[in-house]
Amino acid sequence: MKELELIKRKAVQIFSVEELEEKIKSGKKLKIKLGADPSRPDLHLGHTVVLRVLKHFQDMGHEVVFVIGDFTAMIGDPSGKSKTRPALTFEDTRRAGETYFKQVTKILDPAKTTITYNSEWLGKMNFKDIIDLTSKYTVARILERDDFKNRYENNLPLSMHELLYPLMQGYDSVALNADIEIGGTDQTFNLLVGRELQKDYGQERQVVLTFPLLVGLDGKEKMSKSLDNYIGIDEAPEIMYEKAMKIPDNCLLEYFKLTTDIELEDAKKWIEEDVVLAHRKYAEEIIKMYHGEDKIEEAELRYKQVAKGKIPNNIQEINISNEEKEISICDLLVKVKFAPSKSEAKRMVQGKGVKINGNVVENLSEIITLEEPITLQFGKNKFLKIV
Amino acid sequence: MKELELIKRKAVQIFSVEELEEKIKSGKKLKIKLGADPSRPDLHLGHTVVLRVLKHFQDMGHEVVFVIGDFTAMIGDPSGKSKTRPALTFEDTRRAGETYFKQVTKILDPAKTTITYNSEWLGKMNFKDIIDLTSKYTVARILERDDFKNRYENNLPLSMHELLYPLMQGYDSVALNADIEIGGTDQTFNLLVGRELQKDYGQERQVVLTFPLLVGLDGKEKMSKSLDNYIGIDEAPEIMYEKAMKIPDNCLLEYFKLTTDIELEDAKKWIEEDVVLAHRKYAEEIIKMYHGEDKIEEAELRYKQVAKGKIPNNIQEINISNEEKEISICDLLVKVKFAPSKSEAKRMVQGKGVKINGNVVENLSEIITLEEPITLQFGKNKFLKIV
Repeated sequence: MKELELIKRKAVQIFSVEELEEKIKSGKKLKIKLGADPSRPDLHLGHTVVLRVLKHFQDMGHEVVFVIGDFTAMIGDPSGKSKTRPALTFEDTRRAGETYFKQVTKILDPAKTTITYNSEWLGKMNFKDIIDLTSKYTVARILERDDFKNRYENNLPLSMHELLYPLMQGYDSVALNADIEIGGTDQTFNLLVGRELQKDYGQERQVVLTFPLLVGLDGKEKMSKSLDNYIGIDEAPEIMYEKAMKIPDNCLLEYFKLTTDIELEDAKKWIEEDVVLAHRKYAEEIIKMYHGEDKIEEAELRYKQVAKGKIPNNIQEINISNEEKEISICDLLVKVKFAPSKSEAKRMVQGKGVKINGNVVENLSEIITLEEPITLQFGKNKFLKIV
Repeated sequence: MKELELIKRKAVQIFSVEELEEKIKSGKKLKIKLGADPSRPDLHLGHTVVLRVLKHFQDMGHEVVFVIGDFTAMIGDPSGKSKTRPALTFEDTRRAGETYFKQVTKILDPAKTTITYNSEWLGKMNFKDIIDLTSKYTVARILERDDFKNRYENNLPLSMHELLYPLMQGYDSVALNADIEIGGTDQTFNLLVGRELQKDYGQERQVVLTFPLLVGLDGKEKMSKSLDNYIGIDEAPEIMYEKAMKIPDNCLLEYFKLTTDIELEDAKKWIEEDVVLAHRKYAEEIIKMYHGEDKIEEAELRYKQVAKGKIPNNIQEINISNEEKEISICDLLVKVKFAPSKSEAKRMVQGKGVKINGNVVENLSEIITLEEPITLQFGKNKFLKIV
């Protein structure tokens, strides 16, 4: 079973290996659970770590069940303190679920993938059900969760309702009767709550597998959209290529290990022999995975031209000439959305980052004539042909 | 306002005196809440401490609302560990509520007394409502409750659901929009939770008044039926009289203060001058309160006869002579239910505590002839005429 080996090589912890092997051996079609947040459906390579594990399980014949945490999302932050997480409507969460399904099925087999929403069972629970649920867990065990413990011990506010969230998430496993749950290492505590609750509810305990959080392109923080240290799986091949080349050398093996099926021995050898070439091989691999093998060559070519400071062949065109014949450089940058504001456009020109047809624009008030097509460039990799 | 002074003299803590006076001054008809457990409706003097405070409020024109905690009683102990508190049925709790009403209206004005059941609102709450409720309280504040704190800090089991109980009880005040809540000092924490929650739910905070727990006849433990250190308000006048005479001298002033309206200066003087006489005055007062003034004389007479070792005039009769003419003393004690078993009956005889017609029974196997009526006595105050 190649898949099981791939899963094991990526996992940080397995509770327990014996139970995992037993369940696999049983021949039963297993239900593999993954919890998902309904508010951010844009997938990047960081997300693919666990998604690809799910794919391995599907390849072994098992069924993947996503639990969209719509219940708490619809409640929002009851304290009203967090303005960054407003409560979602029912429609918001369903739209998020559909987008999520579309995105994950770029990796997963749609026929073996189900989306569920935890409001389906949590929304039906009454106070008695909640007393039953909470009676199965002690305060001490909940407060073992690092963030709870730290906040409690340092007298930082920790509201009672927050303690209910791991139990709700754990109850999802009971409601689904999940066989296996996977997640990032930051979810270990919550996944184990589900495993323990299942036992209390008379079910066979789910096997829990945790996986590393992929570090971002900065080599420091966890990959995330908000930190802009990500490679999105929807990004254009040339962007993927360029970003892949920026992966810190000491992180590259981890990227191979967690986001591809490349043999680790091969990846190690490549990195030792020529780390730039190894980056290229990684770039090629992810373009192949998310765009197809035929997109590799073009992306590579474009990357090389840009790296040498040349204008690539195939760049986006925009037609604004019928509106104006002459325009100041700063107005142009705002008009084509290279700059969000005129003051930002000024800074871009002053920083010598803006070029017209390959020549740096030196003058802040330069007037651009739009009779002939021109190529506008910002930085190394942002091009636009204005026709 | 004599009533307000009586209330204040008994109270241990008032949150706050200013708010209490303001509410009283407002002229509004106030809603005074008292929580009640549906499982033990037998009232003794310990219960009357707060009931009489409620009566004072009624005398000032206010309305008393009892909240029968049927919701948690119907759930029982979800851990299943406590066999002593089985879950009650809906009918159990309603019967308890009716008995409760009958008992408390021996002290309270039924026209100004309402019985409510907290399942009426708690039973309707869903998970979202509970998240809202629990979001209003921090873990640290809940764990300030002494018993929670001790158990948590000493690694004794403390289940999550237990933390919800004070919030449920507090929410009762929100559901009722209570103006004032009273209770024993052991309830201080819970009553203050209600007061704080009301503020979070946009209501005016209830005033909280706590009252001492009446010490039992042993002078040590809180008065309770299970410790057999109580004076029940339904007990016969002569029993009340006898029990009142047993109140430890150093507790008598507290009994006057908490369970009667006698002026404290008078009570103090009586106790200083003649503590036995002071006990008699206390006995007379409670017989007057719960049976009427006309029952005092007889109870007193009977008490005096018993105290002198005489057989009182008016004792219960039982007819068993048509069944048997002769019976051993031990069988007789079991038959008339003086002893729960024959071995216990033996111990009673061996302890020289059993008398027939005033004479101690010395012989364990003594045969009693039942042709003539006889008087059976155990200890100082247990008599039965067998005819």
